Amino acid sequence: MPRRKYIERITYASAGVNTTNSAQAKKRIAQLAKTTFGPQVLSDIGLFGGFFEVKGYKKPVLVSSVDSVGTKIKLAVALDKHDTVGIDIVNHCINDIFTSGAEPLFFLDYIATANLVPDRIEEIVSGLVKACKATGCALIGGETAELPGIYTGDDYDLVGCVVGVIEKNKVIVGKQISEGDAIIGLASNGLHTNGYSLARKALGETRGKLSVFSEELGMTIGAALMEPHICYYPVLKPLLPQIKGMAHITGGGLVGNMPRSLPKGLAARFNSRKWDVPPIFNLIKEQGNITTQEMYQTFNMGIGMAVICAPEKAVLFTKKIPSARIVGEVVKQTGEAQVIIDRKGYHKDKIG
Amino acid sequence: MPRRKYIERITYASAGVNTTNSAQAKKRIAQLAKTTFGPQVLSDIGLFGGFFEVKGYKKPVLVSSVDSVGTKIKLAVALDKHDTVGIDIVNHCINDIFTSGAEPLFFLDYIATANLVPDRIEEIVSGLVKACKATGCALIGGETAELPGIYTGDDYDLVGCVVGVIEKNKVIVGKQISEGDAIIGLASNGLHTNGYSLARKALGETRGKLSVFSEELGMTIGAALMEPHICYYPVLKPLLPQIKGMAHITGGGLVGNMPRSLPKGLAARFNSRKWDVPPIFNLIKEQGNITTQEMYQTFNMGIGMAVICAPEKAVLFTKKIPSARIVGEVVKQTGEAQVIIDRKGYHKDKIG
Repeated sequence: MPRRKYIERITYASAGVNTTNSAQAKKRIAQLAKTTFGPQVLSDIGLFGGFFEVKGYKKPVLVSSVDSVGTKIKLAVALDKHDTVGIDIVNHCINDIFTSGAEPLFFLDYIATANLVPDRIEEIVSGLVKACKATGCALIGGETAELPGIYTGDDYDLVGCVVGVIEKNKVIVGKQISEGDAIIGLASNGLHTNGYSLARKALGETRGKLSVFSEELGMTIGAALMEPHICYYPVLKPLLPQIKGMAHITGGGLVGNMPRSLPKGLAARFNSRKWDVPPIFNLIKEQGNITTQEMYQTFNMGIGMAVICAPEKAVLFTKKIPSARIVGEVVKQTGEAQVIIDRKGYHKDKIG
Repeated sequence: MPRRKYIERITYASAGVNTTNSAQAKKRIAQLAKTTFGPQVLSDIGLFGGFFEVKGYKKPVLVSSVDSVGTKIKLAVALDKHDTVGIDIVNHCINDIFTSGAEPLFFLDYIATANLVPDRIEEIVSGLVKACKATGCALIGGETAELPGIYTGDDYDLVGCVVGVIEKNKVIVGKQISEGDAIIGLASNGLHTNGYSLARKALGETRGKLSVFSEELGMTIGAALMEPHICYYPVLKPLLPQIKGMAHITGGGLVGNMPRSLPKGLAARFNSRKWDVPPIFNLIKEQGNITTQEMYQTFNMGIGMAVICAPEKAVLFTKKIPSARIVGEVVKQTGEAQVIIDRKGYHKDKIG
């Protein structure tokens, strides 16, 4: 083993890891996170993990999910706007587990970057905290990692993990879904957290391009793309007893996500005249010259959450939730497709 | 808004996201993950989340932790060896929550990369599965994200989140720790999952440098650096009733991690003659010309887990666990330092 004789002294800091910044960021995170703690968080014993007491359930089933914001981060970095990506990931994860009826208990985050900037970390965490508070979910733990060599420039990744709970006999499994049931669509406000690699390619991702004001959108392209992921848990929770099934429309769109909630032999037929596709999707489609099929297989196209209920209950949803529309129905599956989208009355596609 | 008239059609694939590879990788992961499922995993209802029934606890407290493998990934990529990083992250997370006495229930992983290669993902997941099986922990969920633009080349990040459980009245909080208690050190086999930015800077990270055989190490430098993180849960679980406190020695070393388990007014005094520092640390120190203080503040220096017990119980640990040594004792805190390391009998440092 050759030994280098004259070598400058290496420190952790010179290797790109700034433990002072890390400690500072962690302190700020801890202060922010504490504001989300309810009595079930046993914060006085916080050592190497987050502690959460499960109370009031006879047969508690824990429901968990992990996800990231994806390349929406690239836009946050380009616009130097980091206060909403935390909202994105919390709401994404909560919607995911809520499809089973579970209520969120606690959340853990992971932020990794090349250079840890305490102000930026605080901005990211402020979004996490805001979304956690809005749903009574505790931000119980997290990790901030400084990983020079894996991340470059100001890029970062933001990963979240949520754990929720539901009584075993109340888990929504979709078994009561039957032919003729109504499908309620709850409006999205844009891409939420999916399809950003395609959108960035179609619309560009420089600060200049994102700052262009669009009359169609009524805002800049950047602002439309950064709209935070909507959480459907608060509006749907009171209607849980009426819900037979739910699908969180994320990557893969209606086509990719509806089948997960449908029993075998049944299909979902959507009538696309029944809801508005937000203008950002038309812009992406036109600018990227993307086929309608690719659009529906990638983006939510205006429906962030699809709820299945008995047809006579549908009006409960549309009355109580302003953004809810009856967008389709459950039909017998005849071909291979479990998702059928009737579009604009002039053509019909079986996709997925 | 200017419209581009002649534009090639953009697809999700041309934007760098290969949904076919993604689907293939997810299928393989699902098959592997299923082998970790016990009866508490309600796998038949797996929709958008992982389902785990908590059984047999009167007052269950959930203990959770999230972390990543850090830049050890860079070495895995350089050596194109991906079957152990999964072991690293699972064992790291389980050790973390086990410091409170919690037993692991389930694990979720997040793998993000620029280009999803199913074979590589399968290799990574095989490590996760191996470590989960060894501890009876279910790999209940995960996300594989293809994020061109954030990750480059073959780099990836591997994040894990573990959820464990313990009876509320059995949580180890360190309140019984008193002056004179013994500190048992359980040997590490190398860096585990921390300090890799510094180690890479000191030793290099090219395939060539990592392939050099070292007589001191008895193996190549790469092999020594890739040694998987040891899980201390299986060997310590039977001795839980004797344990007053535990510290998982990760980033920050003994100095950074011991204080988390010590009550105020008490300090940990280590006698470094009582354990062997694995040769990889000496190599890093020499090659990087790193101060002893920096070494102890960054690396575990040979102790992967520190356990505090009554002095008369110490022999139980050293008898049953071959790698366990009595390495120090709990003393009254006199100055600011909560960690004192007596080194080699010839000098003494108060650090941390």
